[in-house]
Amino acid sequence: MSETPHSIGDVSPLQIALRSSKPTLPSILHDLTQLRAVPSASANAVVELFPHISGQSKLTIISGGSREARRLHRVGVVLSGGQAAGGHNVIIGLFEALRQLNPASQLFGFLNGPSGIIKGQYRELVASELHLYLNSGGFDLIGSGRTKIETPEQLAAAKKTIEALQLDGLVIIGGDDSNTNAAMLGEYLRSQGCVCNVVGAPKTIDGDLRSDDIEVSFGFDTACRTYSEAIGNICRDALSAKKYYHFIRLMGRSASHITLECALQTHPNLAIIGEEVAQQSLTLQQVAERIADVIGVRADAGKDYGVILLPEGLIEFIPDCKALIKELNTLLANGSSAIEDVLPQLTPSAANCLQAMPKEIQAQLLLDRDPHGNVQVSKIETERLFIAMVSDMLQQRSQQGKYSGKFNAQPHFLGYEGRACFPTRFDSSYCYALGYTCALLVDAAANGYIAFVKGLARPVEEWEVGGAPLTSMIHLEERKGSRKPVIRKALVSLDGTAFALFASQREGWVLDDNYRYPGPIQFFGPDAITHGCPLTCL
Amino acid sequence: MSETPHSIGDVSPLQIALRSSKPTLPSILHDLTQLRAVPSASANAVVELFPHISGQSKLTIISGGSREARRLHRVGVVLSGGQAAGGHNVIIGLFEALRQLNPASQLFGFLNGPSGIIKGQYRELVASELHLYLNSGGFDLIGSGRTKIETPEQLAAAKKTIEALQLDGLVIIGGDDSNTNAAMLGEYLRSQGCVCNVVGAPKTIDGDLRSDDIEVSFGFDTACRTYSEAIGNICRDALSAKKYYHFIRLMGRSASHITLECALQTHPNLAIIGEEVAQQSLTLQQVAERIADVIGVRADAGKDYGVILLPEGLIEFIPDCKALIKELNTLLANGSSAIEDVLPQLTPSAANCLQAMPKEIQAQLLLDRDPHGNVQVSKIETERLFIAMVSDMLQQRSQQGKYSGKFNAQPHFLGYEGRACFPTRFDSSYCYALGYTCALLVDAAANGYIAFVKGLARPVEEWEVGGAPLTSMIHLEERKGSRKPVIRKALVSLDGTAFALFASQREGWVLDDNYRYPGPIQFFGPDAITHGCPLTCL
Repeated sequence: MSETPHSIGDVSPLQIALRSSKPTLPSILHDLTQLRAVPSASANAVVELFPHISGQSKLTIISGGSREARRLHRVGVVLSGGQAAGGHNVIIGLFEALRQLNPASQLFGFLNGPSGIIKGQYRELVASELHLYLNSGGFDLIGSGRTKIETPEQLAAAKKTIEALQLDGLVIIGGDDSNTNAAMLGEYLRSQGCVCNVVGAPKTIDGDLRSDDIEVSFGFDTACRTYSEAIGNICRDALSAKKYYHFIRLMGRSASHITLECALQTHPNLAIIGEEVAQQSLTLQQVAERIADVIGVRADAGKDYGVILLPEGLIEFIPDCKALIKELNTLLANGSSAIEDVLPQLTPSAANCLQAMPKEIQAQLLLDRDPHGNVQVSKIETERLFIAMVSDMLQQRSQQGKYSGKFNAQPHFLGYEGRACFPTRFDSSYCYALGYTCALLVDAAANGYIAFVKGLARPVEEWEVGGAPLTSMIHLEERKGSRKPVIRKALVSLDGTAFALFASQREGWVLDDNYRYPGPIQFFGPDAITHGCPLTCL
Repeated sequence: MSETPHSIGDVSPLQIALRSSKPTLPSILHDLTQLRAVPSASANAVVELFPHISGQSKLTIISGGSREARRLHRVGVVLSGGQAAGGHNVIIGLFEALRQLNPASQLFGFLNGPSGIIKGQYRELVASELHLYLNSGGFDLIGSGRTKIETPEQLAAAKKTIEALQLDGLVIIGGDDSNTNAAMLGEYLRSQGCVCNVVGAPKTIDGDLRSDDIEVSFGFDTACRTYSEAIGNICRDALSAKKYYHFIRLMGRSASHITLECALQTHPNLAIIGEEVAQQSLTLQQVAERIADVIGVRADAGKDYGVILLPEGLIEFIPDCKALIKELNTLLANGSSAIEDVLPQLTPSAANCLQAMPKEIQAQLLLDRDPHGNVQVSKIETERLFIAMVSDMLQQRSQQGKYSGKFNAQPHFLGYEGRACFPTRFDSSYCYALGYTCALLVDAAANGYIAFVKGLARPVEEWEVGGAPLTSMIHLEERKGSRKPVIRKALVSLDGTAFALFASQREGWVLDDNYRYPGPIQFFGPDAITHGCPLTCL
């Protein structure tokens, strides 16, 4: 099945300018005919469930190959999961590299995510269309989706499509789940004697898909820079108006990488890092008190304004909240959701946590449940939760003569505006190089690999490329009695350089207004040139 | 009283690049010593309450003046009201022009808004500090505030400060209220024999301070471009993910200029213009139905995603809501706020409007009141109101077999992130030229004038400058038995070019995804050069 190309709508001057602005390529990728993939000495151990794709070595792509003609490749590509800036550049890099290796090679885009593979919905991608998408945001060239290829039926359907199309390569652009899926599909295809090579590319704005080789996932830089533009603007507004506290929740599901990066970019008065809250075993009440303390210190200095950053995943890092959610998921499965009924059945710390919450959030926790009866944690508006809690605390402190400021707060959530933007120059080049690398891995018949581009703190020209076996990142976890493969989300390391930098500076941000204003992402001029990789991957 | 300069925090690369990037000046302002202000033939009629400053002519600044030495000026400047990008450039332009006219001239910045004039809180502004603020956002150089200079005591205190500082000029940078205040102060000073000339500069992101001479207020362009960046990103995200409706409320208190400009920049599926809703006398229910209709049409085409723009001032344009709010303000002054008590006392249309609202919004309307007992209209989260109403409607239509889509919505509010940003090249130049013009008006002893820079659709070099008597914009309105001067907010003209352009295109945006992605504001490169004035002032 084939579909007509999607209309790309009206075109802005920036879009036109960026279309004709070729990303910088690492020097190693200047002449593909010279390259070869060399295995590193240490082979990866065999992982249960993945007999056909484990035990493989990491591949580094170096020059010095013979200039022999390369095989014609027929490759499929799919976008999986949430948007991240630069996805189109991965596809364009992949296309261009395949054509350079053999001008007769073909690239097929599966439509609307992995379900396009299962259903056999695809479109051949051609240069005349692709050039319109260079350096653009979004995943709208072929769409994306969250369907997984997991069940025997889905795996068989995928194989059928792959064989019908005679693909020798499939590139899955996705996050931790999608890359786990890539490994499962690569394993399945080999076990069935199918020669198609499955290669993953590390995508997610959350920045939590990291390893020794994957220094950052693509889209993280653009998302953080887009949020930091808004945060910097809000900091300057707070400093000018001097009357509001802005509570800003930042997307990034679990780990606090985005909050950490944005804090380093903008220097807010307070940024809560979920991983630190977990390490210190703070209660919900204590986190709110920490916020109230900062507001109190600033009020003593005559400052009734400020900016506070909160990671989206915070609630699940707070031990008592985490326990509460777990207990509620069990209790509410039985139906009752009146707080009087629920409270006596909770453990004391979970009950305290629930009682510390404002009424609206209690109601949201008890009533809003997903189709499996679970509490919908991602729907909790943490910024509003803390505004309500802190407001109550400050009122109490005021009555006790311990606080004499005025508290006016504004809630913000920054998320969707950072996923489908024009990629920064960093993400443009990074994605383009990832696309090239995926092509080289398919050409090297690497199955069950994830492409990497590393040395990102150095100039683009010096970046190195290669592939790591996906099994080197996969762990088996006990889930409902069976062992399930997962790529663990990389959390913020409290021993890492980025956190240390943050920890060394943040005291100075509490009282002084050392706000930093990164401004909008620039693609031309001095700022575009000085813009390197994210601070959290230095 | 004098204060030490405020610390400007850590500095980003963009901030450094922009500091050394001198704005383009209109050609007319290249050599100030040649200029003279000429009155136009038609003098403004005398306006009651303003005998000393009405009857003055519009002034146009043209070349051909004598090169005689100009007087030394001592000028005060104050920022009044909410932030708008470019305020610092007005101050810097003013400073530079004053120094060019006479190198011994001095500029004093009043701190934290008009209250700085009343309290005598100011700081002399010097070149070494000012150059750090060129092309920066925010009002933090001297702060802003909303205090008005209205009572006899306030007016007398202001005069005392002005005389103590021996000012011959006072520049008030503000919106409609602040410029009305500027006229009142100018009138008062003359009536008291004080020679200081009060000049206003048109500031507000809302874009509702317009006249024949004032084609747009400063800050509007930057705010709209910042919101349009986010809206464009969200459009592309919607198109890629294909599962959410994004309801985006846009700041801009009363008029819908911002929504109209952003709609023209981004081509959303639907944008509600408050002025049109008022003209058509739509009820709240009907506005919600119009939204549900668009969602229904798209669902029939298999599209369960989209972007809808809502102006902040919408509620007050909907006749039944407006009536409801007016009635509630009277009723609730008597205390009761239970819906059962309130409903029977409302007129039928107001009662229908209240009943059409979701429970949370009803509660918000009835309980959240300002210190005067009034309903807090600006706190109503219109995007959540319509999500709830539309969701109910779609559920009903689904039960009736008239809708078969999936409705998942995300609420957004864009406001604070657009007020204190780095000004666009347009706002940079516009503000800089406004500052120059204010200096020339003070030099021409123009009292009770507002500076204008016009011809904004032409290249900067061709812009014209001058001053209009504030009384030409002031109307007297009956308020609580007395006649009060006001500058009426300029609403979106349904007969204007911008609305006509919107009306001619919007049908095509409903079903097709003709989204336009303006991307982040660029200061360098092709996009920065092609960026002109806002589309709504063409």
